[in-house]
Amino acid sequence: MKIGILGLGLIGGSLGLDLRSHGHYVFGVSRRESTCTKAIALGSVDEASVNMSLLTAAEVVFICTPIGLIIPTIEQLIAHLPAANVVITDVGSVKTPIVKAISPLWTNFIGGHPMAGTAESGIEAAQKHLFVGRPYVLTPTATTPPDALSCVEKIVNQLGCRVYHCPPENHDRAVSWISHLPVMVSAALIAACLSENDSQVLQLAQNLASSGFRDTSRVGGGNPELGMMMAQYNQQELLRTLRQYRHHLNEFIHLIEQENWTGLEELLKLTQSNRPNFVEDC
Amino acid sequence: MKIGILGLGLIGGSLGLDLRSHGHYVFGVSRRESTCTKAIALGSVDEASVNMSLLTAAEVVFICTPIGLIIPTIEQLIAHLPAANVVITDVGSVKTPIVKAISPLWTNFIGGHPMAGTAESGIEAAQKHLFVGRPYVLTPTATTPPDALSCVEKIVNQLGCRVYHCPPENHDRAVSWISHLPVMVSAALIAACLSENDSQVLQLAQNLASSGFRDTSRVGGGNPELGMMMAQYNQQELLRTLRQYRHHLNEFIHLIEQENWTGLEELLKLTQSNRPNFVEDC
Repeated sequence: MKIGILGLGLIGGSLGLDLRSHGHYVFGVSRRESTCTKAIALGSVDEASVNMSLLTAAEVVFICTPIGLIIPTIEQLIAHLPAANVVITDVGSVKTPIVKAISPLWTNFIGGHPMAGTAESGIEAAQKHLFVGRPYVLTPTATTPPDALSCVEKIVNQLGCRVYHCPPENHDRAVSWISHLPVMVSAALIAACLSENDSQVLQLAQNLASSGFRDTSRVGGGNPELGMMMAQYNQQELLRTLRQYRHHLNEFIHLIEQENWTGLEELLKLTQSNRPNFVEDC
Repeated sequence: MKIGILGLGLIGGSLGLDLRSHGHYVFGVSRRESTCTKAIALGSVDEASVNMSLLTAAEVVFICTPIGLIIPTIEQLIAHLPAANVVITDVGSVKTPIVKAISPLWTNFIGGHPMAGTAESGIEAAQKHLFVGRPYVLTPTATTPPDALSCVEKIVNQLGCRVYHCPPENHDRAVSWISHLPVMVSAALIAACLSENDSQVLQLAQNLASSGFRDTSRVGGGNPELGMMMAQYNQQELLRTLRQYRHHLNEFIHLIEQENWTGLEELLKLTQSNRPNFVEDC
């Protein structure tokens, strides 16, 4: 197929590498001329341009810009598309606001979220097989044309992803639990430690911190802009999961205040036995 | 020196291996005959017995039992010691209650906490060099004889540890921040996720969970008995840090409710820039 990729960073660039290896012809659009040149040199795209009109020949367009630019980019793109049967999909990590904004503008739209990445970013970080074995969520709604869904799904399946379908709201709630909430929980841990007002204790804590603290604080010490974007775009679901979390935190505090050691151990047995349902390393 | 080790598990057994390699003569005591046999076979001790009277010849005794047994074990041990100049130290992960209970009973006591371990336990898991580069906290008080401190410190230095001195209260507060609080924060995350009452969302969250969730939930999915012991022995400090944590969690919730994205980003910048003061992998 003729596939457009708008936004040539880590995700867009990696997508292009894989799609070309499956025989698709890939048009890439970036805001920077230098990125276009690199994308061609790296083999991520067949053609590249800073001009969206390059995408008039595409049958499917993947929007791979940062989340804050997805809606304005699609609004611009639509003016360049010759026919309404072009399928548009995006790769944003929050789906409800994007699906709500785009659905009235373009019928053949389907929201998507490939859950892959590296610590690096930009076209230079693009790599083959980035999506293999990773989840790729597609979020059709009642008005999504079945052909648009199956078209994107066929392409995505070629990447070797684990493809999931769900309503945008379910996606946003699920990623809040396992991705956005952990960032805030983890950041609050670092912030709380820093509030220790005995400088000798703080220094000692810093000297003694080890793997337990390292792991629990990792995502809270990550990219501040990303954390802020999660909160901004997934505000309602994040607040909902944060309040639920606070409720459970209070339960732990209450058990310890009451010296209900049996109750605490039961609760810790529950968390121990259920964690493997989320992650397999335990 | 003639060194006694009471409790031949991972810590006691590993301690014995290193102390013998530095030329000390090691007496080991365990409740189980089979453990004594294994400890001799593995080279952790020179002599071993289920009878505490073996320790009458020791100049220094390390108490390496589980935390709940430290106080009753020392109470028993004292009856076997021929002279008050024998130095007793322990390896418990909480110090204030132990130091408070033992100081009136035995003058030459100094609390200690080697912060080393593996996922394994028991004498079979004992290994050489377990303590190299790890923190070893000693907690002298105003009444600790300087000779007792320097005696234990000399031995501990031979293990290749990073040795820290502090009051027992400072130790317990510091380990609450970087070890005990993270367990509760992490366990509350798992408990909160499990409370999702839409089974499709819960299933999706379990399918989508990845490295962020894995790391943030790791210590909360650990040994329930250990978590319960931390809370039981370090109750006051843990409650103090938990309440501070809740205060900071509320700050995050408030910023997100108020859509104060600049404030949230500033806070996340603070946590990002300060995390390396605790751990070096970032």
